[in-house]
Amino acid sequence: MFESAELGHSIDNKTFRKEVEALRVELLNVQFELREAGKFPVMLLISGVDGGGKSETINQLYEWLDPRFLSTLAFSEPTDEERDRPHMWRYWRSLPPKGRIGVFAGSWYSSPIADRIDGKLTADETDHEMARINRFEGMLANEGALVLKFWFHLSKKAQRARFEKLESDPRTAWRVTKESWSRLKTHDELIDVAGHVLRITNTPWAPWIVVDGSDDNYRNLRVGKALLEALKYRLANDTPQHYPVAPPIPPRIDGRDVLTALDLSKQIEKDTYERQLAKWQGRLSELVRHPKFRNRALVLAFEGSDAAGKGGAIRRVTAAIDARQFQIVPVAAPTDEERAQPYLWRFWRHVPRKGRITIFDRTWYGRVLVERVEGFCAEADWLRAYAEINDFEHALDVAGVIVVKFWLQIDADEQLRRFNEREATDFKRFKITEEDWRNRDKWDAYREAVCDMVDRTSTGQAPWTLVEANDKKHARIKVLKTVCQRLEKELGL
Amino acid sequence: MFESAELGHSIDNKTFRKEVEALRVELLNVQFELREAGKFPVMLLISGVDGGGKSETINQLYEWLDPRFLSTLAFSEPTDEERDRPHMWRYWRSLPPKGRIGVFAGSWYSSPIADRIDGKLTADETDHEMARINRFEGMLANEGALVLKFWFHLSKKAQRARFEKLESDPRTAWRVTKESWSRLKTHDELIDVAGHVLRITNTPWAPWIVVDGSDDNYRNLRVGKALLEALKYRLANDTPQHYPVAPPIPPRIDGRDVLTALDLSKQIEKDTYERQLAKWQGRLSELVRHPKFRNRALVLAFEGSDAAGKGGAIRRVTAAIDARQFQIVPVAAPTDEERAQPYLWRFWRHVPRKGRITIFDRTWYGRVLVERVEGFCAEADWLRAYAEINDFEHALDVAGVIVVKFWLQIDADEQLRRFNEREATDFKRFKITEEDWRNRDKWDAYREAVCDMVDRTSTGQAPWTLVEANDKKHARIKVLKTVCQRLEKELGL
Repeated sequence: MFESAELGHSIDNKTFRKEVEALRVELLNVQFELREAGKFPVMLLISGVDGGGKSETINQLYEWLDPRFLSTLAFSEPTDEERDRPHMWRYWRSLPPKGRIGVFAGSWYSSPIADRIDGKLTADETDHEMARINRFEGMLANEGALVLKFWFHLSKKAQRARFEKLESDPRTAWRVTKESWSRLKTHDELIDVAGHVLRITNTPWAPWIVVDGSDDNYRNLRVGKALLEALKYRLANDTPQHYPVAPPIPPRIDGRDVLTALDLSKQIEKDTYERQLAKWQGRLSELVRHPKFRNRALVLAFEGSDAAGKGGAIRRVTAAIDARQFQIVPVAAPTDEERAQPYLWRFWRHVPRKGRITIFDRTWYGRVLVERVEGFCAEADWLRAYAEINDFEHALDVAGVIVVKFWLQIDADEQLRRFNEREATDFKRFKITEEDWRNRDKWDAYREAVCDMVDRTSTGQAPWTLVEANDKKHARIKVLKTVCQRLEKELGL
Repeated sequence: MFESAELGHSIDNKTFRKEVEALRVELLNVQFELREAGKFPVMLLISGVDGGGKSETINQLYEWLDPRFLSTLAFSEPTDEERDRPHMWRYWRSLPPKGRIGVFAGSWYSSPIADRIDGKLTADETDHEMARINRFEGMLANEGALVLKFWFHLSKKAQRARFEKLESDPRTAWRVTKESWSRLKTHDELIDVAGHVLRITNTPWAPWIVVDGSDDNYRNLRVGKALLEALKYRLANDTPQHYPVAPPIPPRIDGRDVLTALDLSKQIEKDTYERQLAKWQGRLSELVRHPKFRNRALVLAFEGSDAAGKGGAIRRVTAAIDARQFQIVPVAAPTDEERAQPYLWRFWRHVPRKGRITIFDRTWYGRVLVERVEGFCAEADWLRAYAEINDFEHALDVAGVIVVKFWLQIDADEQLRRFNEREATDFKRFKITEEDWRNRDKWDAYREAVCDMVDRTSTGQAPWTLVEANDKKHARIKVLKTVCQRLEKELGL
C-alpha cells in the first residue's frame, strides 16, 4: 500500500513553478465549470500521518483554487449537539452542496483509526465500521458526489525528520506538540491499522490515493493534478459510475402479500376507544418523561395511502407529549438547499437530540413509493434506496434512537368516501388536491411499491407496523399501543 | 398592567365547547391561508408566571391547529455551539420560516427577566436590553413577521393554589418541582420586574397581551381568539405596519465626500510590497493563533466596486491563516430557505464560533448598496437597514466578535482597464458578466450609496476602512495591516 510512497519522490522548485502555472489556470477553469453546472459536490478527504503535510496541502489548494467556493471542514472534539446524535450526523451536516468543493481535514476515518490503535475497537468492529463507510461512500458516489481520498504517507524516519525540521524554524515550531512526538511512537501501529483500513475501503467508487508526504512540491502537485483530472473526467462524463445495486424485484407469483393479509374490517366501539385512548396516551406521556428516555430518542415515521388518517393518528400521539419535546416534520417538496445534497440529507438534519422526538409525516420512503411509482427517479436510484434507508435507520438505532414506522392502509372504497367527505367539509377542503385524485388511478402500482418496501426494509430494529385504518379509531389505538410497547421494550420497563 | 388579569375570569365548559367548535374551523382555515400565501411567519411568545398554564395552552394550540405546520421552540440551557456565539444566535436559528407558526416556549425575554431578579442585571442594563429587544422585534415586524406576545399572569395566591392542585393529581404532580416552590417565593419580584419589562416592550408593532392564567378555558380561548383575529387582520391587510424608519437622507451640498477625499494614486513598489506582505502575513498568522484569540472571533466584511480586487485581498488574508480556522462566505442570491427568513438571517447563520473567522465576500450591506441602487427593495426597507445593521454588528461586538469592514475603491478608468483585462485572460473570464458592464452606468448612484453607508454605519466598534485600490499592492497591504492592528488592539497586544 505504502511502497510507492517511500520511493523518495521530489520535485525541484523550478519544475514545480512551471507546472503550477498551467495547473492553476486549469484548476480555476474546472472549478468554474463545476460551479456553473451545479450538478455534483466534490469531497476531498485529506488524511495521513502527522507531519505528512495535510494542512500545508490544504492551504496550497486555497492558493490555487477560488477560495470562495472551497470549504474546509475540520472536526475536532464533537460539540454537545453532535454528541447527542448518531456519530455520522456531524459529517452529514458538513457535506458540501452541489457545485462546491469541501475539503475534509479529518473525516469519518479519523475516529475508527484512532480507536483501533487505542484498542477501543476490535479488528472485527473495525471491519464492520469500514463496511459501513464503504456503503456511505457508495451512496455519496451514487448521489453524484466526486469523492477523492488522499493519504499522505511518511516513513517513521521521514516523520521524525519532518518534526525536527518544523521545530527548528521559529515560524513553524508551534506546530510540533507533545502529541506529535507521541504519535511518532505509535507510527508502526498507525501504518498497520491504516494499511488495513485503506485496503478494505479502497473501493472503485472512492479509491484511495496514497501520496509520499515528505516533499511539499511533489505532494501538492500530485493532489492538484489528481483533483484536476478527476474533475475533468467527471465533468465530461455526465452520469457517475453507479456502484452495483440490487437486481430488480422478482414478481410475486401468487396473489398473497402483506397488504391482502390485512383485515381492514377491524374496528372498535366508541366507548372502548375512549378508554383505550386515555390509557395509552397516559402511558405514552409517562414513557417519554421516564428518566431512561433522556438518554434515548424517538423517531416516528408515518406513511400511508392518501386520506388514510396519518394526521389524525399523529395528533393522538402528540396530544400525549409536551410540545417542547417533539417536532413534526411534514415532508413536502425539498428546498433548494436540500436538492443540493444527497437524498437522505433532509431527513438527517431533523434527527432528534437525546430525549427528543421527531415525527415525520411522510418520510424517506418517498423514494421507494411516490418517486418510484411516478417515475421521479431512475430505477437504479430507488432500487439502491432500500439499502441506504436500512443503513440510515441502523445508524439511528446504534445511537440509541428508537425508530417506529407505520403504514396506514385503507381500501379504495373507504378512500373515495373520505375524499368526498373532505371536499364537503369546510376546514378539511385543503386536505384534498387534484393530485390525490390522480394517485387513485395508480392504486395497484402503489400497492406493489408498499409490499416491496415492507419486504426490504422491515428490519429487526426498525420493523414496519401495518395498520388497518378503515376504522380510524382502531388505527389510532394501534399506533399509540405500538409506540408504547416499543418504548417499554427499548427502555426495559 | 396585571389588574384585568386578576379580576377572576373564567369560562364554563359548555360555553367553552361551543366557542371552540367555531374557533377551530376558523383557525384551521386561516392557518391554511397563511401557509398557502407563504408571505410571513407568525411568532407566538408564551411567557408568564410559573404554573400560569404556558405548556397547557401550547398543547391546546396543537389540538386546534394543524400540528404539522406548528413548531415549538424551547430554550433550556444553551448548547456549547450557542454559548460560543452572540446570545441572540439561538433565537435567530430558531425563527419560523414564512408560512409557519413558531411557538416560543421561553424567548429572548427569559434570561433578562431572570437575571434582573437575581441581581445580575442592573435596572439600567435591563432597560438597555429591552431597548435592544424592541429594535429586534421592530425589525421582525418590518420584515413582515406577526409577533404576538402573551403573558400569563397569576396572583401569588392563585399561583399557590395552582401548584397545590397540580400536586394533588398524580398525573400532574411531576410538574411541580422544588424550583416551582422557590419561584413562589420570588413572585413579588417577578411581578415587579415583569411589570416593568412588559411596560417598556409594549410596542405598537409587538404589543403584550396579558392573560389571566388561572382558568384553563378562559386562557386558551383568549389566546386562540387573539391568534385568529391577528391572523385574519394580517392576511387581509397585505403590507404590515412599518414602525417608523429614519427620514430620507439629506443631499450633500458641496462636492466633498469620503470617496472624493481618497487619494487613489497611492501605490507601493514591488520590493516594498513583498517585504510588507511577508511582515503582515506573518503577524496575522501569529495573532489568530494567540491564546487570547481563542475567546474571541473575527468577521471580515469585504465590499467594493466591481473588479476592485476583493478576491485578491481576501486571498492575501487567507494565505496567512490555517484553512481549518476560517470560512469564506461568498454572498450571492439567497436560497429559498433564506428568502423565507428576515434579511439578516443568512448572515447570522455564518457567525463564527469562538476562535474562528468568517470572511464575507460581499455582505449584509448589499441591502443599502445594490438593493437600494437597483430598486430591489423599497426605500423604507433600505432606510431601516442602517439601524438593523448597526444592531447586528453591535450584537457581534458585545459577544467578543471583532468586526472589520473594508470598502475597496477604484476609479472608473481603472475599472474599465480591469474589465478589459479580465475578458482577455482565460482563467479570469468568468469574473466578468453582463451585469458588471451594466453596473458601470450607475457609477454615481453607487457612489452616493457608498457615502451614505459609511456615514451611517461606520460605528465605534465596527468602523469602515476605505481602501484606495487602484494599486492592488497598496490595497492588499492596507487590508492586512488594518486587520492586524485591529486584532492587536482588541487582544490588548
